[in-house]
Amino acid sequence: MPDQTIHRRGLMLVLSSPSGAGKTSIARALLQAEPGLAMSVSATTRAPRPGETDGVDYHFLDIPRFQAMLAENAFLEHARVFDHFYGTPKAPVEAALGTGKDVLFDIDWQGTQQLAQNARDDLVAVFILPPSLVELERRLKGRAQDSDAVVQQRMAKAADEMSHWREYDYVVVNHDLATSIRGVQAILAAERLKRDRQVGLADFVNRLRGV
Amino acid sequence: MPDQTIHRRGLMLVLSSPSGAGKTSIARALLQAEPGLAMSVSATTRAPRPGETDGVDYHFLDIPRFQAMLAENAFLEHARVFDHFYGTPKAPVEAALGTGKDVLFDIDWQGTQQLAQNARDDLVAVFILPPSLVELERRLKGRAQDSDAVVQQRMAKAADEMSHWREYDYVVVNHDLATSIRGVQAILAAERLKRDRQVGLADFVNRLRGV
Repeated sequence: MPDQTIHRRGLMLVLSSPSGAGKTSIARALLQAEPGLAMSVSATTRAPRPGETDGVDYHFLDIPRFQAMLAENAFLEHARVFDHFYGTPKAPVEAALGTGKDVLFDIDWQGTQQLAQNARDDLVAVFILPPSLVELERRLKGRAQDSDAVVQQRMAKAADEMSHWREYDYVVVNHDLATSIRGVQAILAAERLKRDRQVGLADFVNRLRGV
Repeated sequence: MPDQTIHRRGLMLVLSSPSGAGKTSIARALLQAEPGLAMSVSATTRAPRPGETDGVDYHFLDIPRFQAMLAENAFLEHARVFDHFYGTPKAPVEAALGTGKDVLFDIDWQGTQQLAQNARDDLVAVFILPPSLVELERRLKGRAQDSDAVVQQRMAKAADEMSHWREYDYVVVNHDLATSIRGVQAILAAERLKRDRQVGLADFVNRLRGV
């Protein structure tokens, strides 16, 4: 029976990648396989789209509320995209970590940099790469009716995102989806065994040593 | 098909624990399950025992040869136990790591400290703890004919070893052997995906980015 004195602080598992690398499929499989892992829910000031549920897809906030939270330093990371704000509220993440739950983030290198500034010890950052340039181009070209300009824009965005691979702890080249999922699951399992994430080990060891 | 430009530098996986924590069973299972992992073979100046094979159980060296290697700084770690020397020769470990093989070490905290001084970047240090004091005492008491003094000596040695748990990257409390084996396998799989262990990633990403 596990010793009651040891409990685990949760971790923040970040997956970043250029679009088309398979990140979404990996994230979906992880959430299904790992009951102790939950997706981070972002806040946004954009309007809900049909079918989106407040508190599930996003926390939908008005701009004054978002700005008040910004002023209170209540976000782990945030960004403005055109006229809309997006951000990760601190409080629910902190509550999850404190009870030993792990939180999954699907964010880009800019969000990851902010998380690293605000919560480096809790962060496990994984970068997913596509297996080849041919495969990446195939996926970014998407639908046949996309203009060359749109495709070029996607390629440039992917190239920019990939230039930040060195800022991540782990790199998974997604040759094969099942192997990549097992790889990220191993990262999660291993990081849970890191000495620093196990609270109460000092007391536990003292008891083993009879002191 | 995996990209030929990325290859992996091997890692040194250290398992330490007080005796009776299950380390030997975990190591044996790991070596069976992981073809890319080989046990480090120590050198020693003690005489071979019946059934021991030179180069398999130990590299059996005479004292002048061992001391010459010491003088050449040819050991990753070494120790003197009573009249005998023990040590891990650098060259075979370096050869294995260079070709992407991982090497398993069953050494105590003193050996681990020396490995950390000589090869910190290649080191993954795992400490195995017994599940409880009751269980540890049961295992250390061993055979009924052992004197109290012998048992006390074992307990003191275990307590000393356990006082060094903070010097390890990962801590596995061995409640259940199968779970502990899976845990150490996850550590190995995850550490293989660490950015720094994947040689050639920079070139690979540059090609993906078209630069």
